[in-house]
Amino acid sequence: MKSIQAATYSVHFEENGYIKLSNLMAKKNYSSVFILVDNNTLECCYPRFMQNFTTNAPIEIIQIEAGEIHKNIETCVGVWNVLTELGADRKSLLITLGGGVITDLGGFVASTFKRGIDFVNIPTTLLSIVDASVGGKTGVDLGVLKNQIGLFANPEIVLVDPEYLHTLSAREIRSGTAEIIKYGLTYDITLFNEIKNNTELNIVDLIHRSIEIKNEVVFEDPKESGLRKILNFGHTIGHAVESYFLESLDKESLTHGEAIAIGMICESYISSKLLGFPTDKLSEIKETIINIYGKVEILPEDFESIIDLLKHDKKNIGGNVNFVLLNTIEDFKLDCKVPMDIIIESLKFYNK
Amino acid sequence: MKSIQAATYSVHFEENGYIKLSNLMAKKNYSSVFILVDNNTLECCYPRFMQNFTTNAPIEIIQIEAGEIHKNIETCVGVWNVLTELGADRKSLLITLGGGVITDLGGFVASTFKRGIDFVNIPTTLLSIVDASVGGKTGVDLGVLKNQIGLFANPEIVLVDPEYLHTLSAREIRSGTAEIIKYGLTYDITLFNEIKNNTELNIVDLIHRSIEIKNEVVFEDPKESGLRKILNFGHTIGHAVESYFLESLDKESLTHGEAIAIGMICESYISSKLLGFPTDKLSEIKETIINIYGKVEILPEDFESIIDLLKHDKKNIGGNVNFVLLNTIEDFKLDCKVPMDIIIESLKFYNK
Repeated sequence: MKSIQAATYSVHFEENGYIKLSNLMAKKNYSSVFILVDNNTLECCYPRFMQNFTTNAPIEIIQIEAGEIHKNIETCVGVWNVLTELGADRKSLLITLGGGVITDLGGFVASTFKRGIDFVNIPTTLLSIVDASVGGKTGVDLGVLKNQIGLFANPEIVLVDPEYLHTLSAREIRSGTAEIIKYGLTYDITLFNEIKNNTELNIVDLIHRSIEIKNEVVFEDPKESGLRKILNFGHTIGHAVESYFLESLDKESLTHGEAIAIGMICESYISSKLLGFPTDKLSEIKETIINIYGKVEILPEDFESIIDLLKHDKKNIGGNVNFVLLNTIEDFKLDCKVPMDIIIESLKFYNK
Repeated sequence: MKSIQAATYSVHFEENGYIKLSNLMAKKNYSSVFILVDNNTLECCYPRFMQNFTTNAPIEIIQIEAGEIHKNIETCVGVWNVLTELGADRKSLLITLGGGVITDLGGFVASTFKRGIDFVNIPTTLLSIVDASVGGKTGVDLGVLKNQIGLFANPEIVLVDPEYLHTLSAREIRSGTAEIIKYGLTYDITLFNEIKNNTELNIVDLIHRSIEIKNEVVFEDPKESGLRKILNFGHTIGHAVESYFLESLDKESLTHGEAIAIGMICESYISSKLLGFPTDKLSEIKETIINIYGKVEILPEDFESIIDLLKHDKKNIGGNVNFVLLNTIEDFKLDCKVPMDIIIESLKFYNK
């Protein structure tokens, strides 16, 4: 499968990825290699990785707890301390092997350790493969606020090996599928149609096209001053819903994709209200998403807290909540101000 | 006084600095302004700053505790949380008003908040003016390890107003003088000679020349792969001594400059041992520095801990402690490996 050239690095697929990683190791002559994993990827992905990875440099594993709840500064401090204790220096390499928590947090830790060491991302979940492979976003949460702390930093290479997807639950695959749906609605409807019409997905093709799309978008607008904001479709409400379910003691947490799926229904509704997005498409989106994700109960008493969280969205400027909305499929409008009552209406529409 | 053009921004002096800051405010139309101070600069510098600063944007003060001991991730989390609570967004500006702790930590906080907001540095100590005005280093300490966490990020402008120096103690002025001595020994001996020969310094000229030198060095080598390492002269041993005194319960902490002054004597000694640095110059350096800084007691039982700290120096690669040494005045040699016994000898030479 063809490599994708991103800003300063490439995304390599399957066996070729391991070859490119070996080439990098030879070229850079790293003093030591640290592999960041969580308890899941240590068990499920690390053995396969090590079968395909050879180096003369000393290797150390750094393990953190799995889960979004650990994507915070305290975990970073732990990893920075372990790197220090194990003698990591400026010529060390950090390899992240895991989902979005590992790649986002690992990229942040690496690019701030001694003012920056090299890192390589090996995303192992569908979500991190299609969402985090390109774009250079690193970061961690601050309290319940997602990715509030971070920076733009590029890995040396990204290695996508779809074999790791076999280690995922169906729920995790669904989580990643939400981002592919997003690329479909905002950029290339064939992705959405394929997901809508097929129960058996050709996941490798969907992955490659998704990364291509994200790369085109990020290439045009690396710092999210315009076009890149389309990647936030579904994420404004989605992030707030995700944060709310994460911090609620009596609710089960949602996956990122489950929350974004809700967000896409709500924001398609808002699009229909404010921009005349076609109502038949709105119904189709809602039906397709509910078919895949089922319905989550969002109670009227939850609305206020969700709205409160929206006010902290990173994209807000001067106190306004900024949305990217759709005029129609593949045609978006940036920086839309949305009245609070329409946001609440959209949550009610999801619930109906 | 003439502005100095750095990588992506300028250092402006005196009244002109406030004019340039006003221009920046007008051009960027910031949504809000946050001024990071410590208890000292809030009292001593903030009133003067506000007399010279006008904006229509809302202004909030964020105060942290003064002192190197607070230059850590916990303080960053505090500032990130306050920024969040006060509604800072991606169009907010952070102005740092203080010494190196404020400018280093503030730059790090700003460039990692929501993946980076603009910041302006107003260094108010001699040390931060001559050391941190250019170069783009931001960061905080990890435990006793100085600047272990950070990144390269440039402010929008730097404003140097020597009036703030009147708020400093003689000890703080001496601390900054050590960096000027370093520029003298490694790059332009006239600076060293002026400090050696005059009890009344023309501090404004010394500042301007020091920033010019640092700017030339950093321009040549922004990421410290070669020339920039000369700025570490005196800092390898100096940082270890500084960390050791900071963490020792029974020792009074040293200022950065006091520690670097010790480091320069030790590293000049090592230079004479390994590179034939002239012994008359070595004596002159030791005498000049001791005249200004007095003698600090470093006991033989302290040596081992200081050596241990050296092993964590950010510049080390593959377990070797890397020094920049002097062949002679203004003529340096990078990446020198130094046997441990010579390092200990150099501490004994300082003590003699």
